[in-house]
Amino acid sequence: MAAFDGAMTQDFSNGAAWMAGKVIPIHEAKIGVTDWGLTHSDVVYDVVPVREGGFFRLADYLARFETSLAEGQMNVGMSIDEIADALHQMVAASGLRAAYVALVAARGTPVIPGSRDPRACANHFYAWCVPYVHVIKPDMAEMGADVLLSDEVRRIPEDSVNPRVKNYHWGDFTRGLFEAKEKGFETVLLADHAGNATEGPGFNLFALKDDRVVTPERGVLQGITRQTVIELAQEAGFTVEERALPVEELLEADEVFLSSSGGGVLPVRRINDRVFSNGGAGPVALRLRARYFDLTLDPAYRTEIAYDESTAGLNPGLRV
Amino acid sequence: MAAFDGAMTQDFSNGAAWMAGKVIPIHEAKIGVTDWGLTHSDVVYDVVPVREGGFFRLADYLARFETSLAEGQMNVGMSIDEIADALHQMVAASGLRAAYVALVAARGTPVIPGSRDPRACANHFYAWCVPYVHVIKPDMAEMGADVLLSDEVRRIPEDSVNPRVKNYHWGDFTRGLFEAKEKGFETVLLADHAGNATEGPGFNLFALKDDRVVTPERGVLQGITRQTVIELAQEAGFTVEERALPVEELLEADEVFLSSSGGGVLPVRRINDRVFSNGGAGPVALRLRARYFDLTLDPAYRTEIAYDESTAGLNPGLRV
Repeated sequence: MAAFDGAMTQDFSNGAAWMAGKVIPIHEAKIGVTDWGLTHSDVVYDVVPVREGGFFRLADYLARFETSLAEGQMNVGMSIDEIADALHQMVAASGLRAAYVALVAARGTPVIPGSRDPRACANHFYAWCVPYVHVIKPDMAEMGADVLLSDEVRRIPEDSVNPRVKNYHWGDFTRGLFEAKEKGFETVLLADHAGNATEGPGFNLFALKDDRVVTPERGVLQGITRQTVIELAQEAGFTVEERALPVEELLEADEVFLSSSGGGVLPVRRINDRVFSNGGAGPVALRLRARYFDLTLDPAYRTEIAYDESTAGLNPGLRV
Repeated sequence: MAAFDGAMTQDFSNGAAWMAGKVIPIHEAKIGVTDWGLTHSDVVYDVVPVREGGFFRLADYLARFETSLAEGQMNVGMSIDEIADALHQMVAASGLRAAYVALVAARGTPVIPGSRDPRACANHFYAWCVPYVHVIKPDMAEMGADVLLSDEVRRIPEDSVNPRVKNYHWGDFTRGLFEAKEKGFETVLLADHAGNATEGPGFNLFALKDDRVVTPERGVLQGITRQTVIELAQEAGFTVEERALPVEELLEADEVFLSSSGGGVLPVRRINDRVFSNGGAGPVALRLRARYFDLTLDPAYRTEIAYDESTAGLNPGLRV
C-alpha cells in the first residue's frame, strides 16, 4: 500500500464514482438515508454507455439529462460542460474501457429542517461507473428473449410520473419482474391503462409488421437507443411509426424487439404464449442489433476518453 | 473527546441510525448509490412517532411493516422482535424523547453482478430517528391549512404501485408540491384517474358532512393515524364511511381534515377556491386533533423507551 493514497493507488476494479469533486471507489459512494433522492425517489438520472474507451452519443445523453434537470426543477450548481468533465475524469481514472456510466441529480435535504418544500432543498449531482455487464446474455440475445406481458401490473401513467424524465420509480417494473421471473420469463413488458403496450424495465419496444416498425410514443422514455434504432430502421428502408401500440396489434407483429443502452437491440421470440419468428430471434432484429453495435464504434458518434496511460492495463473491463 | 468512542460520546443531537447492528450518528447513515433501494426505489418503510419518551401504537406500526415486507417480497433476515429491539436501542441511545422514527427495508444489490432479478438481491434493514419537527406548524394547524387539489397530477394508481405498501414513490406528490407551493398553498391533494380524491404527501383525507365522516378506501395508504382518527370519530358519535370520495362530494363537505403520524389531525380551511368552516379550522377537526394528541400519551397505546439515564438531559428533543 503506497503512502500516497491518490487515485492511481485506489481500487476501481468494481467501478468508481464522482462525488463532490472527487473520484472515489464505487463501494464508498453513498447517499444519506434522509436525502429526498432516496426517501421521495426524487432523482433524475441518465446512463451513457462506454465501449472500447469511448462514450457513445454523449452529447445526446447530456442533452436529455439537461432536459430532465429542468423538468425535475433541479439545480445542481454545475453546467453541462462541468458534468461532462466530471464523467471524463471519473471514467479515465477508473481505467474502464467498457462501462455503464450513470449521471444522477438528487433533491438532497431541506436547508430548513422539517420543511416539506421541495424548492428548499440543496440539490446535488453525482456520477458512477461500473464495468459493463450484459444485461441480457449475448447467447440469449441471439436466441431471442421470452417476455411476459403482465396482466396484473400497469405502467405508471405519465400524468402521475413523467416517464420522459428518466427516474427511479421502478415499483411497477419490480412487481412485473417478480411476476415474470416466477413464471420463467426473462423480463417483463407493461401495458398502460388504455391497453397499449409501453415499455419494460430499462428498455423500449418495437413491433415489425411487413415494412412498418411501430414503437410506442406516449408513456415511455424517449430512449437514445430507441432513437438510434429508429434511425437504423429507416436507413434499412422501413417506415417507422411512433404512436400508440395496442397490445392486440403487438401480438400480431412479424417480429418484436427491445432496445436499451445496456443491451442494444434485443430480439423477442415469445410474449406470453405468442411465439414470434418460429421461436427464434427475428432476422430484422438481428440485423439492427449488429448495426447498432457497429455504430457504437463509429467515430462520428463517439467521444474518446483520455485515459492516463498508467491505467491502461488496470481495468480493461469487458470488451464487447 | 474521550478516548473510548462509545455511543455515549457520539453526537446524536441531529438524530441517530441503526445500521448492521450498530447505532451511529444520522449524518453517517448512508446507502450505496447502486443499491436498488435507491436506483429502483425498491424500498418498503414505515414511520413510528415517539412522544414524551414512548412509541405510539408501536405494535400496529410493526404489524404494517411486517405486511409491507411480505408484500414487497423482502427478506431482511430479522424477525419483527429483532426489529423492535433495534428501534428501542437506537432511540434510547439517541436520547430523543420526541422523534420521528423510520424503519426501512431496501432491496440491496444483486448477489450475481449484472443480474436484473429482484429475487437475487441481498435485502437489508436499517432504521433512523430524527428530532420531532412539526410537519405543519402548530399555528397553521389551529388556523387550518390551504390545500391545492391538483388539476395536473394524478395519484399513482394501485395497479402500478400499491399504496398500501408504504413506499418512496413520491414523484406524483413532488410534482404536486411544486405546483402547490408555486400557487401559495401549504400542501397538495391528489385525485385518482376516476375523479376520486385520494391522499397527499404523507397524509390521509377526511370529509365531514352532517354526522358522517368519509375517508377514501382505495388507492391510499391505510394510515395508522387514519385508523386512530376513524376510531376517535366513531367514539365521538360520527358514522365513518371508508369508500371512494368523489372530488365533487369532497368540495361539498362541511369540514375537511387530514391525518398523519407526524402532525396528527390537520384542519383544512380551503381547497383551491372552496373555503370551509368560514375560512378557519373546523370545530370537529380541532376536537379530534386534541383527542389524538391526548391519546398518544395514553399508556394503553404507548411503549415506553428505556433510556440510559446518562442521556436524560442530552437530547430532550422537542416536547410536544
